[in-house]
Amino acid sequence: MTNTILNHRTVRKYKPDEIPESILNEILEAGIRGSNTGNMQAYSIIVTTNQDLKNKLWELHFKQDMVKQAPVVMTFCSDFNRFNKWCVQNKAIPGYDNFLSFYTASVDAVIAAQNVAVCAESKGLGICYLGTTNYTADKIIKLLELPQNVMPVTTLVVGYPDENPLLTDRLPAAAVIHNETYQDFSEENIKKLYDKRDNSEETKKIIKENSTETLAQVFTKYRYTKENNVNFSKIFIDTLKNQLFMNHEK
Amino acid sequence: MTNTILNHRTVRKYKPDEIPESILNEILEAGIRGSNTGNMQAYSIIVTTNQDLKNKLWELHFKQDMVKQAPVVMTFCSDFNRFNKWCVQNKAIPGYDNFLSFYTASVDAVIAAQNVAVCAESKGLGICYLGTTNYTADKIIKLLELPQNVMPVTTLVVGYPDENPLLTDRLPAAAVIHNETYQDFSEENIKKLYDKRDNSEETKKIIKENSTETLAQVFTKYRYTKENNVNFSKIFIDTLKNQLFMNHEK
Repeated sequence: MTNTILNHRTVRKYKPDEIPESILNEILEAGIRGSNTGNMQAYSIIVTTNQDLKNKLWELHFKQDMVKQAPVVMTFCSDFNRFNKWCVQNKAIPGYDNFLSFYTASVDAVIAAQNVAVCAESKGLGICYLGTTNYTADKIIKLLELPQNVMPVTTLVVGYPDENPLLTDRLPAAAVIHNETYQDFSEENIKKLYDKRDNSEETKKIIKENSTETLAQVFTKYRYTKENNVNFSKIFIDTLKNQLFMNHEK
Repeated sequence: MTNTILNHRTVRKYKPDEIPESILNEILEAGIRGSNTGNMQAYSIIVTTNQDLKNKLWELHFKQDMVKQAPVVMTFCSDFNRFNKWCVQNKAIPGYDNFLSFYTASVDAVIAAQNVAVCAESKGLGICYLGTTNYTADKIIKLLELPQNVMPVTTLVVGYPDENPLLTDRLPAAAVIHNETYQDFSEENIKKLYDKRDNSEETKKIIKENSTETLAQVFTKYRYTKENNVNFSKIFIDTLKNQLFMNHEK
């Protein structure tokens, strides 16, 4: 178990092999067993295997080929649609059209997703998370026919790996773990924590390819730019409004 | 592994026994190995074991006794503070003071949390998520001395179980899993999916204790009220502003 987690690699190339139904059901059950707020299960998982739909999802996920290749694409959503309907049918007035409700449900959706990911990997499957879900949520909603009170949170592609990537490097634990309270970083700290990454052969290659001076500039100028972040933030919040998750402002 | 996940129970009573350092380090390492956006590792984990601090966290988590009892409380945060400092030191101009950056980092923080949870449970530890993190984020920030660009997302208490609760019921998989696209629910569907839960002995007991007519009313009138949700939504968004995660609005 711990080995599965410690050996996690993101897989970006998949064999066309389908996932047997019994295995697919078991990894979905793993998702459903995850912790969730008040056992409301205010999330849903859209399991897409139809090639035509996957091709359309591929467009929305910035044409990452694994979305077309992998047999299964799972879109995890915050979902108060079902719960609200249950409330109304049971003489209760739901009050879940607000940011807090969306956000707590989205934490639960990610818990479910990671259970699916770990369970899948323990069975020899590979996975990849698609952060693009948060960039094109408005379009994903239309394609997957998500009603109001439902918002996509994250996506997993799942299938049998057709590559065997190396373990990704991580910063020293001290970059991420704080004892008791937050210990802020001095300039010297930062330099030390990033030293290995900043000076690796891999980094030198990336800097050369991008014609930048530092690795940090690759992030700010190309990978995650302010312009895109601001633009996607606005689309995401507008989409939350359309899905009726910002009515606390009224 | 799958067994660990399928047998997950939330534990609310803990023995005072400490977690051996080697085990604590291993479950934290499991968190760090989780998928994350662009390997930015834009999250942090505050590991609190000091009894005085735990007592103060207990206050902020609505006086749930497990926060005082369990040996370790872990607060998982979206964190662009470290990444921004690294950018600035490396001649790069960070553009991560916006909602999208907060949100993608918070997905990563939850992936890390669930890896910690699964790994802990595989070693005989118990866990409980604290959704109250999203209600009192402003106060948690002060207590744990989180700087700007850091926002608490979720909390885990971890320790050796002093109870052996039954497996919690879940709705039928059809309530949560949608094939290909979202299949919206008819009144009849909802009734069927909730039938077992609505009519269980446990539900009858809860309805009687709360003097309501239905289980749904227990949620809307007492457990997750509109008034609280609206109030906590406003505090959460204001806190995001203070932590510099809403500057896309400017």
